[in-house]
Amino acid sequence: MTAHLEIRSTHRCFSGTQSFYQHTSEIIGLPMRFSVYQPPQAQEKKVPVLFFLAGLTCTEETFMIKAGAQRVASQLGMMLVSMDTSPRQTGIDGEADDWEIGAGAGFYLDATETPWSSYFRMESYVTKELYQLILSQFPADQERIGIFGHSMGGHGALTLALRNPGLYRSVSAFAPIAAPLHCPWGQKAFHHFLGNLPQSWREHDATALIEAGYQLPALLVDQGLNDPFLNEQLHLDRFEAACQLKGQPLNLRRHEGYDHGYYFISTFIADHLHHHYNQLA
Amino acid sequence: MTAHLEIRSTHRCFSGTQSFYQHTSEIIGLPMRFSVYQPPQAQEKKVPVLFFLAGLTCTEETFMIKAGAQRVASQLGMMLVSMDTSPRQTGIDGEADDWEIGAGAGFYLDATETPWSSYFRMESYVTKELYQLILSQFPADQERIGIFGHSMGGHGALTLALRNPGLYRSVSAFAPIAAPLHCPWGQKAFHHFLGNLPQSWREHDATALIEAGYQLPALLVDQGLNDPFLNEQLHLDRFEAACQLKGQPLNLRRHEGYDHGYYFISTFIADHLHHHYNQLA
Repeated sequence: MTAHLEIRSTHRCFSGTQSFYQHTSEIIGLPMRFSVYQPPQAQEKKVPVLFFLAGLTCTEETFMIKAGAQRVASQLGMMLVSMDTSPRQTGIDGEADDWEIGAGAGFYLDATETPWSSYFRMESYVTKELYQLILSQFPADQERIGIFGHSMGGHGALTLALRNPGLYRSVSAFAPIAAPLHCPWGQKAFHHFLGNLPQSWREHDATALIEAGYQLPALLVDQGLNDPFLNEQLHLDRFEAACQLKGQPLNLRRHEGYDHGYYFISTFIADHLHHHYNQLA
Repeated sequence: MTAHLEIRSTHRCFSGTQSFYQHTSEIIGLPMRFSVYQPPQAQEKKVPVLFFLAGLTCTEETFMIKAGAQRVASQLGMMLVSMDTSPRQTGIDGEADDWEIGAGAGFYLDATETPWSSYFRMESYVTKELYQLILSQFPADQERIGIFGHSMGGHGALTLALRNPGLYRSVSAFAPIAAPLHCPWGQKAFHHFLGNLPQSWREHDATALIEAGYQLPALLVDQGLNDPFLNEQLHLDRFEAACQLKGQPLNLRRHEGYDHGYYFISTFIADHLHHHYNQLA
């Protein structure tokens, strides 16, 4: 793969390099943006890679600006990759009118319903095109690749890892949409992107996939107990029950007082990077 | 002082509390916004306070979102305070038309020229009203108060500490506008806010104040050598020479490859908090 990468900006950060890229995605057929933090160790050898999938309304910048992850990535020698949360400027009518669907809300799946199916193929983009692009054009150790994410991106990290066994050797999530079949965000996205096919919905629901026998590496999930979306949208209890039923190792930490945002994520980001570092050792 | 504080939002962060406030400023005569990070130690005792002054175009949110300072403030038990960079919605014609002057560009001084003098009194706001408000309404140790800032806010930190001896017991800066008399940003701001009075300009120029015999606590300044504003706008060399001439203790660290933004600041923020912690011990 020799895709042309446009470097939109680059910044030294914790002795490494924080860069923002744009390229024309073959899978999506439009320009897509992503970001990469290369730790100083990447100047000399291939390093482990962590893909971070952000939540609703976010872009490829959000995690890199707000999470404070580069400090720990620099210490541990891990590359960080994040990406925009959807195609943009597709020309689909009303694409950016609703923050829960469309632009900024691609839900990390390949849409099968028109009009979304023309461009919204975030699962293939993340697991195939961007994955291969990182391996081919950056000093990435293909044996040590992990995935994590937040909210919609927590859903993405869990489901992409479940649906693509072996692709990611370490997985974690912050406040994931853990049972989208049972919440308004998930039902709306699945209705628009997948149509009204119950089996198709179950194939993109982390809890249903665990119940169906899919497995993950030992999992770390952090959840704030002051998260306004916890009860209606996230349904961690359902996911936890499925993991217990199926023997899926899960370290689910519930944190008194923390909410859904990046002040919560930044507090526990170091624990996540260490979790991945240990899993990828 | 019993000013009414509206809490705009509050978030648990590193076992402390990150909050955003609005109040009606008596000195400015308009609503002003500021942000406070209270470390967990503040639940039990008064803690040292660090005021952070942000740069052009920033708000009270910028530092709290981007610098990654709360982690270290939580460890050391220090309160962080930041504030908007100017009054907003003053009704002054063209107030927000130029990012170098007016809204987002208050330069931490009290304007004497119309129309700005009606509202732009950031020096009095920061050194008197907000200072007293923090002391009276938060668990702040009045014997341990420091100030730091970035770019325009680095200028602010240096000049407010120089012009108000004893008010701040520790001072540092990231990439400050260190000799505004000699740069386009400073000349433009001084012309609009202070008129064409050379003596008045010198009273708001950190280098000129040092040359005039004003002193600061032992100073830490970090500067990226890939900062696009270094040569034209910042003039650290002039400031360094004045400090050497006058025996002002200055630890000026020049960092290869780093630029002017928060990826640079976040890399060295821990060093600044430790500098203040030690100075305030």
